[in-house]
Amino acid sequence: MSDTLEHLHDVLEQRRQANPDDSYVAALHHKGLNKILEKVGEEATETLLAAKDAEHGGETQRQALINETADLWFHSLVMLSHLDLDHHQVLDELARRFGISGHDEKAAR
Amino acid sequence: MSDTLEHLHDVLEQRRQANPDDSYVAALHHKGLNKILEKVGEEATETLLAAKDAEHGGETQRQALINETADLWFHSLVMLSHLDLDHHQVLDELARRFGISGHDEKAAR
Amino acid sequence: MSDTLEHLHDVLEQRRQANPDDSYVAALHHKGLNKILEKVGEEATETLLAAKDAEHGGETQRQALINETADLWFHSLVMLSHLDLDHHQVLDELARRFGISGHDEKAAR
Amino acid sequence: MSDTLEHLHDVLEQRRQANPDDSYVAALHHKGLNKILEKVGEEATETLLAAKDAEHGGETQRQALINETADLWFHSLVMLSHLDLDHHQVLDELARRFGISGHDEKAAR
Repeated sequence: MSDTLEHLHDVLEQRRQANPDDSYVAALHHKGLNKILEKVGEEATETLLAAKDAEHGGETQRQALINETADLWFHSLVMLSHLDLDHHQVLDELARRFGISGHDEKAAR
Repeated sequence: MSDTLEHLHDVLEQRRQANPDDSYVAALHHKGLNKILEKVGEEATETLLAAKDAEHGGETQRQALINETADLWFHSLVMLSHLDLDHHQVLDELARRFGISGHDEKAAR
Repeated sequence: MSDTLEHLHDVLEQRRQANPDDSYVAALHHKGLNKILEKVGEEATETLLAAKDAEHGGETQRQALINETADLWFHSLVMLSHLDLDHHQVLDELARRFGISGHDEKAAR
Repeated sequence: MSDTLEHLHDVLEQRRQANPDDSYVAALHHKGLNKILEKVGEEATETLLAAKDAEHGGETQRQALINETADLWFHSLVMLSHLDLDHHQVLDELARRFGISGHDEKAAR
């Protein structure tokens, strides 16, 4: 489970090189940063609305929130990739803030 | 590295139970879902602005984007926690979409 | 010029009653509050991006910002209308904050 | 009522020239476009959340939505002012789209 982000990273880097006609990810990169950021903003909005509906909702609303959060994280990964950054730097930053040693973990794998 | 989200999840669950006067996470939960979602929206906005500045910026702007993305993911994790959800469901959803088997990975660890 | 909001208000109220197949405004109301709020969030994002591009841009970028701000205000008017509110209450609130007497103005027209 | 935007425009232009220590508007301009856009994004988020709460809420929730929409419009006016644009261009654009003649209106005043 915890390696999903690693696999996803590999998939995203492969698709970045694909034909924009064949791949949603390649098409996003081809359209450029503004289009990618529009999607991040759009999914952030949908996440907020889904969370409001999930608060007093049932399983359908809870699954919708999971889907929207997945959309938000996915498009933020594409954003990082577009600027030649990736989730490692973000997770390292979070590890640093919370006193979790990313490097020890890496050594321990 | 890839276990940073697991460690962070444990930290977030612990802090959720802490005294709101002592813990930012506990304070967010205490203030309720709207306050958490305000932070998600605020960090989404700051991520967009940081990405625009990183596009033609140097290392300072790139690190700022990493910091803002970390803030966005962090507050979305608090949002999930507040609704008794977590990153596992989000990563499972992403794995499902991209044909990455979360369960095989789990078995292989 | 200053009565544009009044005219727009009348147009929006008329279209709210129209056939959703014939009118974008009627279609938005028919789809419900979440769809309207998704548009507000989407246009807010596009306004932010357009403002960043307008800062160092030329007339094309400045006109794009005007267009996105118009989209944002338009969809926020539809949002108010959907909840049986309108721009009068918002302008009254702004007048109150800034010591501008909305009622005197109304009387003076 | 309909001249509230004109009065507000005058107030905003005056305060833009004020001492940032004395005026919130001057302080926003002094901090620059990113800070103004952070506020636009923040108020857009709060508007969405307030609208969700107003849908099934009472007068308190409805007034909160009016307040948040006022905040959103106010900060978008400061954004326009910061880039030497104003509400006239936005209202002209809306008038053009809806076949409302801004110039005729102006002549008729």
